[in-house]
Amino acid sequence: MSITAPAGFEAAGVAAGLKSTGKPDVAVVVNRGPQKVGAAVFTSNRAKANPIIWSQQAIQDGVVEAIVLNSGGANCFTGSFGFQTTHQTAEKAAELLGVSAGDVLVCSTGLIGTGDEVFRAKVLDGTEKAIAALSVDGADAASDAIMTTDSRPKRYTYADAGGWSIGGMAKGAGMLAPGLATMLVVLTTDAELTAEEADEALRAATRVSFDRLDSDGCMSTNDQVTLMASGASGVRPDLAAFHAGLVIVCTALAEQLQSDAEGASHDIEIVVVGAASEDDAVEVGRSIARNNLFKAAIFGNDPNWGRVLAAIGTTEAQFDPYNVDVSFNGVRVCTAGGPDRPRDEVDLTPRATSILVDLQVGDARARILTNDLTHDYVHENSAYSS
Amino acid sequence: MSITAPAGFEAAGVAAGLKSTGKPDVAVVVNRGPQKVGAAVFTSNRAKANPIIWSQQAIQDGVVEAIVLNSGGANCFTGSFGFQTTHQTAEKAAELLGVSAGDVLVCSTGLIGTGDEVFRAKVLDGTEKAIAALSVDGADAASDAIMTTDSRPKRYTYADAGGWSIGGMAKGAGMLAPGLATMLVVLTTDAELTAEEADEALRAATRVSFDRLDSDGCMSTNDQVTLMASGASGVRPDLAAFHAGLVIVCTALAEQLQSDAEGASHDIEIVVVGAASEDDAVEVGRSIARNNLFKAAIFGNDPNWGRVLAAIGTTEAQFDPYNVDVSFNGVRVCTAGGPDRPRDEVDLTPRATSILVDLQVGDARARILTNDLTHDYVHENSAYSS
Repeated sequence: MSITAPAGFEAAGVAAGLKSTGKPDVAVVVNRGPQKVGAAVFTSNRAKANPIIWSQQAIQDGVVEAIVLNSGGANCFTGSFGFQTTHQTAEKAAELLGVSAGDVLVCSTGLIGTGDEVFRAKVLDGTEKAIAALSVDGADAASDAIMTTDSRPKRYTYADAGGWSIGGMAKGAGMLAPGLATMLVVLTTDAELTAEEADEALRAATRVSFDRLDSDGCMSTNDQVTLMASGASGVRPDLAAFHAGLVIVCTALAEQLQSDAEGASHDIEIVVVGAASEDDAVEVGRSIARNNLFKAAIFGNDPNWGRVLAAIGTTEAQFDPYNVDVSFNGVRVCTAGGPDRPRDEVDLTPRATSILVDLQVGDARARILTNDLTHDYVHENSAYSS
Repeated sequence: MSITAPAGFEAAGVAAGLKSTGKPDVAVVVNRGPQKVGAAVFTSNRAKANPIIWSQQAIQDGVVEAIVLNSGGANCFTGSFGFQTTHQTAEKAAELLGVSAGDVLVCSTGLIGTGDEVFRAKVLDGTEKAIAALSVDGADAASDAIMTTDSRPKRYTYADAGGWSIGGMAKGAGMLAPGLATMLVVLTTDAELTAEEADEALRAATRVSFDRLDSDGCMSTNDQVTLMASGASGVRPDLAAFHAGLVIVCTALAEQLQSDAEGASHDIEIVVVGAASEDDAVEVGRSIARNNLFKAAIFGNDPNWGRVLAAIGTTEAQFDPYNVDVSFNGVRVCTAGGPDRPRDEVDLTPRATSILVDLQVGDARARILTNDLTHDYVHENSAYSS
């Protein structure tokens, strides 16, 4: 059910011919109310796709009636024609749903530079077909339709004892990196929220979930995370409980994205503790997550702590490089700037990999998720345009 | 001849057993004067190897008598024992050469964490053997002895019509990235220079050569570029001519490093023009050079300009993402935020690859050198510790 598990939502996913495989490629999620609250966060890349430019304006009033998403073309760097395509998509959906175009968000994903007349015709046709197919049973089809190089759909549902729930779907397999949102995600809830509450909860949750996923260091032009609240449960949630629930959903979806990252053979969590601040812990974790030599070593099952120290040495974080401990999968191989346990005590054959870095200067911590650098990553990103 | 082409220098390279292959692994370069001027730049990584910590102190007075270099072990994160090894290496060379230990620089390269009793004994033994073998014919052996995963030595000689010359040798195949020096390089000249002149010329030349080489985004713990001036030509050079000559030598060595980068199949120059400042041009070029998706696309012979724009969109440089032109090997595939010439007009099969990015806001420019991301890069950095 995922996004239609919360009351008040319908969804659909249809094949509009954007994907050469004939698989579903246009999705619509609609909020039937009674409330039509929306919040969204966007890629911080200055090179923004047309749907991002549109949606950033449309979200200003905190009202979202529906969201239209397509795979099979990013509609990025497609000029004013591409922007008009996004506008027409919102207009088409609004007309069929009887709402204002300014309350319809649009998301696209696929190859940058794709957005010609054929693309426009297929997106508009798909939008019409998807709206005709809307139902509470359409969540799975919708999450299928936003997949690109994903090998499986990403869905999650959380039900709170307080009588409200949160659903979510996501796509993303390459270009996973931080800044803000780093993929397409739609979150729904039937809790009663104001637009300000939805916005605050969304920003707080993405900051510690999607923003901490850095699969390949490449920031996308099209990424967007949208939260829609219908209020259909009739329940005003405890806001702390809602924040916690949203973090659970976002973290679960982020981990699904990580585990399906292009070509990866290890899912790596980098836990940085003993930092002077959370920002320091994030900076240190990210410097490791982005180091190709470290990532290739993990692919080779090599607990190469020297590459970890070389990576964190490039940061501005507060620590003494000669007083740092590093553990791989529970074995401390480096302590105080020197070797500790023998490397061969470390077993890096499991897919789940945990790196613990203790900076020994404070109490702050952070957890960054990344993947290894593999032959398959190179293959997938060199053999196919995306 | 390379480093012994300028008058006043002798060199040697010997096998001391640090490399399991039995190949040469300890080099010494000595300045026979009459002047003993030295300047050096070091990695800006906060995780610095013991030879870096030593050499940064030793260079303070601008006097360098000799430099001892070893491959087969980085002597980084090896504790106070490792620092003592570096100190003893300088003492040993100083004693045999009849100079002060404080005027002997030391460089090491190899696996981080390597620097035990066996390492120390071999380095000291190799230093003694190399000093016994010093000669003006030793330049090739010295450049062989500093190789790690390099497939070939890097050497260059420049002779100026003014009666002085510059020689250079370099090593480096992985962990090539900026900050400052990013490899081991020794430069020699018989021009008469003050320590201040040598330092200024070296910083100016490395800024536009080695600092613009960003093969894999990974900054080393051991990198050092050293310039030694003997004054043996008896010629005070025109300083502008000397700066120009040093840039020629440093750029040639940087290009040799690029062309031998681990696993690379393309040597990529990224030329950024039309920038508001040189710093902007460098930032934009580096963001492209560090983008794994772009680098994998080049490996796949894919002129993926979308990934170029997505990379530069993450920078703070001054430009309008929708008014940027991008050319691959002379074919403008993107103009003003949209497609231009068809992708299939671009031939990316040659190893030499040129990307031209026109930001269209000013007159500044910069050239960044990088490589593609290949299966062989992943293989070399996952199958072997380094």
